[in-house]
Amino acid sequence: MKDPQYYIQGVLDKDMRVLSKAITLIESSRSDHKVLSRQVIDSLIPYSGKAVRLGITGVPGAGKSTFIESLGMFLSEQGLKVAVLAVDPSSSRSHGSIMADKTRMERLSIEPNAFIRPSPSGGSLGGVASKTRESMIACEAAGFDVLIVETVGVGQSETTVASMVDFFLVLMISGAGDEIQGIKKGVLELADGVAVNKADGDNIEKAKQTRKEYESALHLRMPETRTWSAPVMICSALKMTGIDTIWETVLDHRKKFTDTGELEEKRKKQSVAWMKELFEDGVKEWFYNKNDAKKRLKKLRREVENGSISPTSAAGELLKVLED
Amino acid sequence: MKDPQYYIQGVLDKDMRVLSKAITLIESSRSDHKVLSRQVIDSLIPYSGKAVRLGITGVPGAGKSTFIESLGMFLSEQGLKVAVLAVDPSSSRSHGSIMADKTRMERLSIEPNAFIRPSPSGGSLGGVASKTRESMIACEAAGFDVLIVETVGVGQSETTVASMVDFFLVLMISGAGDEIQGIKKGVLELADGVAVNKADGDNIEKAKQTRKEYESALHLRMPETRTWSAPVMICSALKMTGIDTIWETVLDHRKKFTDTGELEEKRKKQSVAWMKELFEDGVKEWFYNKNDAKKRLKKLRREVENGSISPTSAAGELLKVLED
Repeated sequence: MKDPQYYIQGVLDKDMRVLSKAITLIESSRSDHKVLSRQVIDSLIPYSGKAVRLGITGVPGAGKSTFIESLGMFLSEQGLKVAVLAVDPSSSRSHGSIMADKTRMERLSIEPNAFIRPSPSGGSLGGVASKTRESMIACEAAGFDVLIVETVGVGQSETTVASMVDFFLVLMISGAGDEIQGIKKGVLELADGVAVNKADGDNIEKAKQTRKEYESALHLRMPETRTWSAPVMICSALKMTGIDTIWETVLDHRKKFTDTGELEEKRKKQSVAWMKELFEDGVKEWFYNKNDAKKRLKKLRREVENGSISPTSAAGELLKVLED
Repeated sequence: MKDPQYYIQGVLDKDMRVLSKAITLIESSRSDHKVLSRQVIDSLIPYSGKAVRLGITGVPGAGKSTFIESLGMFLSEQGLKVAVLAVDPSSSRSHGSIMADKTRMERLSIEPNAFIRPSPSGGSLGGVASKTRESMIACEAAGFDVLIVETVGVGQSETTVASMVDFFLVLMISGAGDEIQGIKKGVLELADGVAVNKADGDNIEKAKQTRKEYESALHLRMPETRTWSAPVMICSALKMTGIDTIWETVLDHRKKFTDTGELEEKRKKQSVAWMKELFEDGVKEWFYNKNDAKKRLKKLRREVENGSISPTSAAGELLKVLED
C-alpha cells in the first residue's frame, strides 16, 4: 500500500498512470483504502473545480458513444484535455462493463489528451455516483479541462448525473411517434440542452422536425432560471456536424452562469447535497444494521401491505429500535 | 380528553361532528393526542380504502376552487358523498388558511353530502401530508365515496399529493405562450389526466388548441403503464361542461387499474413508501437532535462550501456522532 503523498503528487504532476491508480483506490471497497482515499481526495480538492463538467444521457440508439467520441476528438484537437467518466450502477467488472468501454471509442482511447474510465463496478447508484464524483475531483486536479460524465438509461441515474455536472445534455434521435417515447419521465426536465443526433443524409429534415417538437415540449415547462432556456440543437456525430455549435452552447451557458454567480452557487449546492446524501445514507444504513431493525421492517411492511396497521404506527414501532 | 372508542364509533356512525373532531385530533401536535390518534387510525384502517382518491393541482388562475366545487356538486347530485381535503404546507391557521376555505366553495359547503376540510396548519410538507393521509383514512371510514385532495402549487406538494391518490389531475388553462409556462417542472409527468379549464364562450377554440399542445407534450414522455395513457380534456367549471367526461375518465382509469391489479399494487406501494418516509424522517430527526450534530453539520457545511473538505469526509465526520 502506497503513501497518500504518492497519489497526491502523481496526480498533480499529471501522471496518467498514477491518476488511474488513484481512481482504483477511490473505487476500492476495502476500509483501509477508503481511509487513504479520503486523505487523497481532501488534499486534491483545492486543485479541483476548474473543468467544464458536462453530463450526457441519451435514448437507446441515440449514438451516445459515437457522440462522446466525436465531441472528445473535437475538443482534443483544440488542445483541450478531456476525461470521460461514467455512472452505471448496473455494470460489474466480472460481467463485463459495457459503459465507457475503451473499445467503443477507438479513436478517442488512443488520443493522448483524452482519458476514458469505465463506470465503477457494482454497488448502489449512490455508491457508484459518489465514486464518480471523487474521480472527477482527481481528474480536475490532474489538469483536465473537460469532464464528460455519461449515464446509462437505468433507474435514477440521469437525476444523479445531472446533480454532479454544470450542463446536462440529452441526446435524442428523430423517429416516428413511438420511438420518441423511449425518453423516460422527467429526463427532459433535467436538460440544459437537447441535441437531436444522426441529422445526416436523408435524415436531416426529420431531425429538424424533431427539433421543433422538442422545442414545443420544452417550451411547456418553466425555465430553470431566468438566465437560461434549454435550446434544442441538431448534430451528426458520425459526420462531425453540429458538434461545434453544441460546444459553443455549453461555453455560452458557462459564461452566463459564471457571470451571474449561479455556477458557483449550483456547485456549492451540489456539494452540500452530496454531503447530506452521504450522511443520510450512512445514518439509514447504521439504523438498518442496528439490532433487528431489518427483521422488524420486513414484518411491519407486510402488516402495512395487509392494511392491519397504519404506516404511522408502523414507523413508530420501527423507531423504537432507537431506544434500545 | 375522550376515549378512542368515542372517535372510532362516531366516525363509523358517519357522525360528521365526530369526524371533524377526529381530524382535529389527527392534526394535533400534543404527544398524548398523537398516541390517541394512532389508536383511532389503526382501528379505522380496516374500514378504509373504498373511496376514489382524486388529487388535483392547477396552474395559478386555472380556477381550481370553482372546478372542485363544480365536480363536488356534480358528484353530490348523483348521491355520492364527497370529502375535499388539502395539502398546503404554507398555510397556518393564525395567518388565515386560504386553502379549501369553505367560503371559496359556497354551494358545496352547504351540501349535506359534502365535507370540506382546510389544510392542516403549519409544519413541514411531510408532516402536513401525513396528517392529510390520516384524515383520508378517517373520511373513508366515515363512508365518503370520493376524496378530493387539492394541492397548492408550492414546492414539492404536487409530488406528495400524487403519492397519496389513485388519479392525479392537472388543471390548465389556455393562454398565449408565457402564461402556459406557469406549470412547474415535472408536474405534467405526474398527471394521470390533464383538463384545460375555462373552455367556454370565445375561449373554446383556444382551449382546443391548448389541448392539442398538451397532447403532443404528453406524447413525448413514456407512459406510466401499458394500461393507461394520460388524456387531455377540456371543460368549463363555470358552465359545468366537460365535468362528466372527466369523472368518466377517472372511473375508467379506476376500472382498468382494478382489473389489472395495479390499483391495489399502487396503494400498497404508497403505504409502504409512506411508512418508510415517516421512519426515515424519524431517524434523521433523532440524529440531528443527538449530541451536537446540528452544530457539527453547520460547520461542515461551511467547509464543504469553501471547498476545504470533501463531501465524503464531511459526511464521515458527521457520522462519528453515532459512535458517541
